[in-house]
Amino acid sequence: MDADSIGRFDVEVDVLVIGYGCAGAAAALEARACGAEVLLLEQAGGGGGSSALSGGEIYLGGGTPIQQACGFTDTPEEMEAYLLAALGPQADAEKIREYCRGSLDHYGWLTGHGVPFKPGFWDSPTWVPPTDDGLMWLGENAWPFTDIAKPAPRGHRVTSEGFGGKVLMNALSAAVEAAGIQVRTNTQALQLIMDGPRAAGVLARHFQDRIAVRARRGVVLATGGFADNPEMVAMHAPLLTGLGVTSDGGDDGRGIRMAQAAGAAVQRMSTAQVGIALVPGLAVRGLLVNDVGQRFINEDQYPGLLGQAALFRHDLAVWVVLDEQAFEEVPEAERWGVQPGFVAETIGGLEQEIGMPEGALSSTVHEYNRYAALGEDPYFHKAKQWLRPLEPPFAAIDVRRGFAPPEMGSAGRGGAEVFTLGGLRTGLDGEVIDLSGDPVPGLFAAGRAASGLHGHGYLSGTSLGDGTFFGRRAGAAAAAG
Amino acid sequence: MDADSIGRFDVEVDVLVIGYGCAGAAAALEARACGAEVLLLEQAGGGGGSSALSGGEIYLGGGTPIQQACGFTDTPEEMEAYLLAALGPQADAEKIREYCRGSLDHYGWLTGHGVPFKPGFWDSPTWVPPTDDGLMWLGENAWPFTDIAKPAPRGHRVTSEGFGGKVLMNALSAAVEAAGIQVRTNTQALQLIMDGPRAAGVLARHFQDRIAVRARRGVVLATGGFADNPEMVAMHAPLLTGLGVTSDGGDDGRGIRMAQAAGAAVQRMSTAQVGIALVPGLAVRGLLVNDVGQRFINEDQYPGLLGQAALFRHDLAVWVVLDEQAFEEVPEAERWGVQPGFVAETIGGLEQEIGMPEGALSSTVHEYNRYAALGEDPYFHKAKQWLRPLEPPFAAIDVRRGFAPPEMGSAGRGGAEVFTLGGLRTGLDGEVIDLSGDPVPGLFAAGRAASGLHGHGYLSGTSLGDGTFFGRRAGAAAAAG
Repeated sequence: MDADSIGRFDVEVDVLVIGYGCAGAAAALEARACGAEVLLLEQAGGGGGSSALSGGEIYLGGGTPIQQACGFTDTPEEMEAYLLAALGPQADAEKIREYCRGSLDHYGWLTGHGVPFKPGFWDSPTWVPPTDDGLMWLGENAWPFTDIAKPAPRGHRVTSEGFGGKVLMNALSAAVEAAGIQVRTNTQALQLIMDGPRAAGVLARHFQDRIAVRARRGVVLATGGFADNPEMVAMHAPLLTGLGVTSDGGDDGRGIRMAQAAGAAVQRMSTAQVGIALVPGLAVRGLLVNDVGQRFINEDQYPGLLGQAALFRHDLAVWVVLDEQAFEEVPEAERWGVQPGFVAETIGGLEQEIGMPEGALSSTVHEYNRYAALGEDPYFHKAKQWLRPLEPPFAAIDVRRGFAPPEMGSAGRGGAEVFTLGGLRTGLDGEVIDLSGDPVPGLFAAGRAASGLHGHGYLSGTSLGDGTFFGRRAGAAAAAG
Repeated sequence: MDADSIGRFDVEVDVLVIGYGCAGAAAALEARACGAEVLLLEQAGGGGGSSALSGGEIYLGGGTPIQQACGFTDTPEEMEAYLLAALGPQADAEKIREYCRGSLDHYGWLTGHGVPFKPGFWDSPTWVPPTDDGLMWLGENAWPFTDIAKPAPRGHRVTSEGFGGKVLMNALSAAVEAAGIQVRTNTQALQLIMDGPRAAGVLARHFQDRIAVRARRGVVLATGGFADNPEMVAMHAPLLTGLGVTSDGGDDGRGIRMAQAAGAAVQRMSTAQVGIALVPGLAVRGLLVNDVGQRFINEDQYPGLLGQAALFRHDLAVWVVLDEQAFEEVPEAERWGVQPGFVAETIGGLEQEIGMPEGALSSTVHEYNRYAALGEDPYFHKAKQWLRPLEPPFAAIDVRRGFAPPEMGSAGRGGAEVFTLGGLRTGLDGEVIDLSGDPVPGLFAAGRAASGLHGHGYLSGTSLGDGTFFGRRAGAAAAAG
């Protein structure tokens, strides 16, 4: 809608930020730090967004104080090489380079805004450590990435018992309040207001009231992805149809669609994070197999990459197979209530019980055990520390059955929850790029409303990570007008 | 660009069709049959497009004269059930229903325009029959589809020795000429001319000259997909990066981008047909395995679905493994020059030669042979007629090495050639749908510029099929103004 058709703006600010998750908070804080008058709009009743429901991991490296305190050395170059490989194919090389070079600074910015990290190290595959340890592997120590970059753990987990996203958002929200940033909740953006080719504000709704907001210098879209919008999922990411969604319910693609109406381009709309109902500590000690008993990946990879392989390559028809020792080795706190659904004294008995062809699982376990006894995994190169012949009795867990850890809610169809990684095409300062490849003046985006670091792949911490990192960039660029 | 800014139009017609492949020809013919004055623009030096380079298979059914002559009964309902399953997930149910109900009529339209089909039946998996037989299976007789719809072969192959696309386009071109449709070749569309919200023509280039064409009633985009545009592939279909392309070189996404500039929506941009360098007749008599010797699909499925599984699930790292009898059973004409790259007296010797882990291929072949002797394939349900224990000596063919049948050109990286299935969102009459879900007045699209029947899956014949079927619809709708 055109600015001329707005009789009078109800509110005028320098920078308008839409969406109060981590990307919106970071954009607002940085715009305010640049001297701009800032307004944050949020459609929910309070700030936090999907960020507040997340595990609270942020992908940081290059030798942070936490890495150093835990005895690890790291460089931006090794971090860059790993992210390029693990987030590909078609990861954004320019954004990854900026992100890695700026990582130490970004760590300082986060801690400076009250985000806590504790120098403890959790040394086993997991979605979220059951302790409050602040450093964890996110797949850097798993093949094939060990051949590509020198491994260092870069999962920086905001100090918390359980999921840390709420701690992150509490810290950023306190900073937003302290900075004197205006916040309007229960306020839903409806459409951009354009002044010619330039984004000049937004028309929003607060219950029955329409509010026209003018942004003198810039608008930042930090509205999240589109996993909560079934029509957009069907149009752009058909393989995600019907799955559970990791979000606060507000990832409705609103910002993406508003910007598209102003000529913005979108990219890589089919990509997604796939969280599956799998306990990484159990899977790594056993086998991850498909419905005909075949392994398909080294079980020590970052569990989100296991999830992508399970969904995109095996339609989520996957099982964790393990023995008693493997189960007992994992503390109950890490098991998230998962119990083996099937137990048998022999592998033949197990495959019969779970309905696999006779011989399917037996031949896989036979091969695995034969090599594990030699300390080798020539099939998928799982690290030697996790290799041990499995012994009876055996158990199997059907990943499709899901699980329900208290913080996570219940997983959807097939034991998976997803969020989308595709979105608005943006430049290094979060500027939204139009269909001709030029910036839309005055319009910026960050977080999952934008296509960020990611190609096809995903790692924990890269969504809060690029959301806050490029959110800051977007806020500063918007403030500069 | 706005119509007001065009001083004078160089050409005025009722219906303007851009792109002279099968969809453009069908649109032009039907618009002309409705009484419209029609102009066809083509950027190449002559008509044909990627359609002319195709195998010339058209997916038709419901009891065509060819099916009847070959002794098969069929119904639109069984055809619909198969297409919904094989082209999914998220195949377009409404388009598929229209397509199946209209299939007999469409067969009549094609033959009425001189497209020849011969009532002979080719009864073995293939990309294109080596004979001029006019009917072939396109996966209808393979599990799991045999559980979903009553199988009938629906691959109608335009009568030809070798690839039939050129015969199809020769027939349609003769009909275009006979109908008095104007054709301008070497003429590249640059941008749509809009009259307010309505598509009113196009600005084009003929060598150095700019030509403004006014379309009084409608514009039909039949410009093909975007597989030849690396930037669009990187943005929308990252897993296709660097692969060979099945096209005439002109699938540059031009029409998609022109329509997007007018507010059109796109959908399912990551999907693709994947032709791999695999001889279906050999694969079905042996095994298709990945780099660690695992089978992953019943080898009697339509080879395009084997190709999608090979690319999207196994990064094209796939092999055909077979024995001497299997190789000898396939006539040389069907082998397209493929020779086994690796031969060994034992499976152990073969896996060593091709660099698989010791035991990988052996355990797969052991399981396959054990069940084949019983006439069973509980792993992937290949039809009994193809099950036989493999016997020494054994051979392996690396699909990544590709092959070069005379008509096909050479396959690209990894032995695969692709074309894109995503494109403009259209309705049942080819009307282009905008970002708000409304038609763009005066604008239509068909063929691979549009998102057609397809969800994630693809079958031969459905691209020429929906291109001509919905091309006709688009032409008629455009002529109606």
